[in-house]
Amino acid sequence: MKLQIITISREFGSGGRTIGKKVAEQLQIAYYDEEIVSEIAKESGLAESFVKEQGEYANTSSHFLFNFNNWGNGMTSTLSDRLYVLQRNLICELAEKGPCVIVGRCADYVLRERRDCLNVFVHANMEFRADRIVRLYGEKEDAPQKRLEEKDKKRSTYYKYYTNRTWGKAQNYHLCLDSGMLGVEHCVQIICEVVNEKNK
Amino acid sequence: MKLQIITISREFGSGGRTIGKKVAEQLQIAYYDEEIVSEIAKESGLAESFVKEQGEYANTSSHFLFNFNNWGNGMTSTLSDRLYVLQRNLICELAEKGPCVIVGRCADYVLRERRDCLNVFVHANMEFRADRIVRLYGEKEDAPQKRLEEKDKKRSTYYKYYTNRTWGKAQNYHLCLDSGMLGVEHCVQIICEVVNEKNK
Repeated sequence: MKLQIITISREFGSGGRTIGKKVAEQLQIAYYDEEIVSEIAKESGLAESFVKEQGEYANTSSHFLFNFNNWGNGMTSTLSDRLYVLQRNLICELAEKGPCVIVGRCADYVLRERRDCLNVFVHANMEFRADRIVRLYGEKEDAPQKRLEEKDKKRSTYYKYYTNRTWGKAQNYHLCLDSGMLGVEHCVQIICEVVNEKNK
Repeated sequence: MKLQIITISREFGSGGRTIGKKVAEQLQIAYYDEEIVSEIAKESGLAESFVKEQGEYANTSSHFLFNFNNWGNGMTSTLSDRLYVLQRNLICELAEKGPCVIVGRCADYVLRERRDCLNVFVHANMEFRADRIVRLYGEKEDAPQKRLEEKDKKRSTYYKYYTNRTWGKAQNYHLCLDSGMLGVEHCVQIICEVVNEKNK
């Protein structure tokens, strides 16, 4: 079976988004990242910035209860749970549309029943990532490592909560790449070659 | 800095050894696996089969105490600990000799201070591995999955005990490959390309 979907999970600052974008460009397929946020913001009526934060970093231990009117079954669920469901449904719909790259948002887990997914995890050491977020995202130079650790912890917690899997466990992905060692461009090349090799 | 050493950690039955051997052949560099066992057996006076088992699967929770005469500092250490030290020293010596592939035995951790190592983890799903061990190693067809689970657990425990790291955690390796999905030959190709790309 041909590979249609590439999911990219990534450590904050590892260049995973850039890699995903470039892979989509090279393979000439769709790329979904911010589009997911916009669509869910529209559907839920919530602010994009809030949806973005909640979609990967929800503080699942203390998220507040929220009863959506359109939940419809009378059960009270948390806002985070409801957003997860919207996000999951949207990811499934996007995957049905055709070949694409989807970054983050537990897409590897959401699409786990499909046989046409390549699941990639991108990571890098602290030094590479700290340098990258200061340089590219204009993060404050004081304590970028602390910020990275917090982001990693939140992503990991979110992933564990909704998937019961361990974030960054090699066995959950087909390909794990150290972008700090390999370089962003080389990661793009490896992923594209894997897809082309499987699909030839 | 050029890559000189390739360490390959692997799930039992994933084809990691075969991949390591083929990578060494293609890159025309040394390959160490059984050689490590023979050398340590010679040095310790223990049977090769025993050394082989202890070198990756030692039951670290119940290993018996053994006072080597040549330990020399009057401290009592376990046989497993002593074999680990012999193995660690040998791996460091082999790495000094020149370019090579080293399979298993916590080599990624032992050589962690070197900047010329590519650390690879090879894994595959249960079905692929069960089929492989029955077909290639003549393992009994009843309950190969149970045997795989036991082997994984022992390797994981051994690795944790001596390195305090989590076996199969993507962040510990530069490259993690699902040999079941990618195929053994393609894994060889990816590793060789990474080495050639870094060393060109």
